[in-house]
Amino acid sequence: MTATLVTGIGELTTFDPAHPGPLGLVRDAAVLAVDGRIAWTGASSAAPRSDADAVVDVAGAAVIPGFVDAHTHLVFAGDRAHEFEARMAGRPYTAGGIRSTVAATREATEDALRTRLAWLVAELHAQGTTTFEVKSGYGLTVADEERLLRLAREVTDETTFLGAHVVPAEYADDADAYVDLVTGPMLDACAPHARWIDVFCETGAFSVEQSERILRAGAECGLGVRVHAAQLGPGGGVALAVELDAASVDHCTYLTDEDVERLAASRTVATLLPGVEFSTRHAYPSGRRLLDAGATVALASDCNPGSSFTSSMPFCIALAVRELGLTPAEALRAATLGGAAALRRDDVGHLRPGARADLAVLRAPSHIHLAYRPGVPLIERTLRL
Amino acid sequence: MTATLVTGIGELTTFDPAHPGPLGLVRDAAVLAVDGRIAWTGASSAAPRSDADAVVDVAGAAVIPGFVDAHTHLVFAGDRAHEFEARMAGRPYTAGGIRSTVAATREATEDALRTRLAWLVAELHAQGTTTFEVKSGYGLTVADEERLLRLAREVTDETTFLGAHVVPAEYADDADAYVDLVTGPMLDACAPHARWIDVFCETGAFSVEQSERILRAGAECGLGVRVHAAQLGPGGGVALAVELDAASVDHCTYLTDEDVERLAASRTVATLLPGVEFSTRHAYPSGRRLLDAGATVALASDCNPGSSFTSSMPFCIALAVRELGLTPAEALRAATLGGAAALRRDDVGHLRPGARADLAVLRAPSHIHLAYRPGVPLIERTLRL
Ligand SMILES: [Zn+2]
Ligand SMILES: [Zn+2]
Repeated sequence: MTATLVTGIGELTTFDPAHPGPLGLVRDAAVLAVDGRIAWTGASSAAPRSDADAVVDVAGAAVIPGFVDAHTHLVFAGDRAHEFEARMAGRPYTAGGIRSTVAATREATEDALRTRLAWLVAELHAQGTTTFEVKSGYGLTVADEERLLRLAREVTDETTFLGAHVVPAEYADDADAYVDLVTGPMLDACAPHARWIDVFCETGAFSVEQSERILRAGAECGLGVRVHAAQLGPGGGVALAVELDAASVDHCTYLTDEDVERLAASRTVATLLPGVEFSTRHAYPSGRRLLDAGATVALASDCNPGSSFTSSMPFCIALAVRELGLTPAEALRAATLGGAAALRRDDVGHLRPGARADLAVLRAPSHIHLAYRPGVPLIERTLRL
Repeated sequence: MTATLVTGIGELTTFDPAHPGPLGLVRDAAVLAVDGRIAWTGASSAAPRSDADAVVDVAGAAVIPGFVDAHTHLVFAGDRAHEFEARMAGRPYTAGGIRSTVAATREATEDALRTRLAWLVAELHAQGTTTFEVKSGYGLTVADEERLLRLAREVTDETTFLGAHVVPAEYADDADAYVDLVTGPMLDACAPHARWIDVFCETGAFSVEQSERILRAGAECGLGVRVHAAQLGPGGGVALAVELDAASVDHCTYLTDEDVERLAASRTVATLLPGVEFSTRHAYPSGRRLLDAGATVALASDCNPGSSFTSSMPFCIALAVRELGLTPAEALRAATLGGAAALRRDDVGHLRPGARADLAVLRAPSHIHLAYRPGVPLIERTLRL
């Protein structure tokens, strides 16, 4: 048994209803972690010091649960800096750019992909993210998708089969044949390495009907369902996600009133990815409208080389407050508890007893600084006790 | 004599016309610094290795000139996180909030102010800023303003007397009497510690007439002129700045066509502070319009606890590309050479022979990543050779 006491916490966010307010805040706080799990949180003066083998003093810093980033595309090769530069000079974003990353990723060796992935995982960790999902989707052949998911599984349990990211160039004239591949041999090869199945349900990618075939096939193999939808315009993707009890529907930039009602009446989380709107100069989704309707909202990075190459959950929080209408507290909740809900996890995203002892120590006295000090590297340490 | 060779630079931005393009880019580059100054830049294969006492290999990273942040308010006590939180929930920003920082700063001990300042300076440095301006303006008495400038002078030569930041509460009914103080005993006490004089020329702060009195008094004492203007609405501040040959007029959010023409025809730099618009939810200025007209544009953080508590020049660059219409190259230029022009310095902001050997090494292969990867801490090392 290993017991670690973290003391000197100026402001602790627990999301524990045993502590006051929507954040379950404790001032002058301490946390006791035993064998990687939260055993106790409360006032420093009441800390069970004699139970601890080790003590970490954070000197007045704010401490929050580690971020849960429920949407990333971390396994790929190359970058698309020049596409970004051209887009910022006025060329519109289309899903077609994905294909250039597919070509680079297929070419890359397993070692090269693993090295790049490890570098990005370290980057996430340094920015306070302790749980993250990783999708495939830059392989688009049976062997390449299987390879990406194997590599993803080396770094996280939250792996998502996204063979239906885009129709690859070689199937451009016969998308249904590609759907046959995705729901047949590709799914068979990938399912053992995946917890989730996902599809890019959007004009220019996969239709609602194709998406439904793919998601139902994945669900029959025991995979949980998540959907990319309503990024570039409204469509049937959100309704499909809710109908299939998807854990999350991601983007949600263009929602009808009915979509918002459906989400509010379901347990499907609306995962907002404001890094995409930042980096594609699109209009932002309204997080406020979703929260006011009673939907559960998550924030995620969508870290990928095309539409959102940020890995920074603090940046997503700052954008959520500036652009999506969330308060700093709501944005923090969406980046932790919300992300956990989007992964149907109850062991992360909060610091109630029994939760994983995953903490981010801020170079700041309050969680508010994550939005108040945009762009500043505010993560002092990320602790997985 | 100390000579250091930096090699293995994947992409070097020099702004030296001896190298191609608007950035003076060199690939597979090296830099030789001798006694703190750039002695040579060029292709790694041509590097004068035998001249170097020490070699630093940056393993393919992009290297840029250190950022020049020409507008900060770094000497203050307290923070205004709760004001920020309230504003994001809908309460408008007014200049009045400055007074709460004035009260906290007057109360603070010199040691407390010095400790906080050192912490912020370290934060700037870690984010690649190697030259920065610091203003007074949270004292607003003779003794307090003099104290802030003395402290500022301990960390930078670029100190600015901003007694005319806001009319303090004790002069609320007689602003002209406060102007008398600023242009009289306060200026006498502060000028020895300052290079610049500045005024907040805006409705609710100082009128154009009051601003002119203050700036002319400073200029007569040998101080260079800079102006805060056109932050909250159009006004005569920009015309005044140009008329007085100010080094810079800062904010420039609301410019008339005549203002833009005046700036383009002058050597007064338009310093844009997009962190302010981000953190106050105001509309952004158009950097594009200024550049297209031929004006010189700088980017600065305006780091202060009220309207923009970011210290991140990379974040300002990302905002300039997303919101101000600049390309990544133009934004980098504004954050380096532009800042130098706003301080009338020709020894920083570029890497031509003779410049200060101030470099930022990026955790990225290209300067484009500063905008392409928003929020990610991309400064691997800041070098002052
Ligand atoms: Zn995605
Ligand atoms: Zn200012």
